[in-house]
Amino acid sequence: MRFDPATLRYDTNGLIPAIAQEEATGEVLMMAWMNAEAVARTLETGRVTYWSRSRRAFWVKGETSGNIQKLVEMRVDCDRDCLLLLVEQAGPACHTGRRNCFYTAIRDGEEVEILQPEA
Amino acid sequence: MRFDPATLRYDTNGLIPAIAQEEATGEVLMMAWMNAEAVARTLETGRVTYWSRSRRAFWVKGETSGNIQKLVEMRVDCDRDCLLLLVEQAGPACHTGRRNCFYTAIRDGEEVEILQPEA
Repeated sequence: MRFDPATLRYDTNGLIPAIAQEEATGEVLMMAWMNAEAVARTLETGRVTYWSRSRRAFWVKGETSGNIQKLVEMRVDCDRDCLLLLVEQAGPACHTGRRNCFYTAIRDGEEVEILQPEA
Repeated sequence: MRFDPATLRYDTNGLIPAIAQEEATGEVLMMAWMNAEAVARTLETGRVTYWSRSRRAFWVKGETSGNIQKLVEMRVDCDRDCLLLLVEQAGPACHTGRRNCFYTAIRDGEEVEILQPEA
């Protein structure tokens, strides 16, 4: 069946969450949001493009920083309300300079930083 | 620092997205939602507990099906508005009987089913 971004289930703001996972290692890098046009642009260009809720603008990941995400494969979940993006990430995915955004672990009720910014 | 679920950033419905990842393999299993109480219960019990938006009730994953998710570690992202749950999944995570929910891939513009329900 031909894929049409309009058939996904978006929230009341017209957005769908997209999880970026490093294809080679399985590392979950980040989660951000897409609208239907961002989904289409990502598939067309092979460059992961989110919708920035704060800037209310398309956000071609890495356009400024150079830390681009090359799309390897897009997957849709059973409810069609979440996307999984298998990517090749150049440099750190997180704006803090860390490889991924999930660097705070909860261990024995305490917040523990488990990943440092890259040099 | 002591972790307090109230310090997370919830959406206007009081919910935060939570990504479940199989700890041993890195497989992304599913994405669902938690409120602050679900976060607290998950940490207290070690059994992943979501908030069901459709049923408007707590949803102890696997309570009915037996396909429970045992929490290995909870992680918080840089913006504190998304959770990553490292889990040990018993049986299939998806209600369709598949190991994970992301079984539809977009390949050359077509939807392709890449994972079958388990026997």
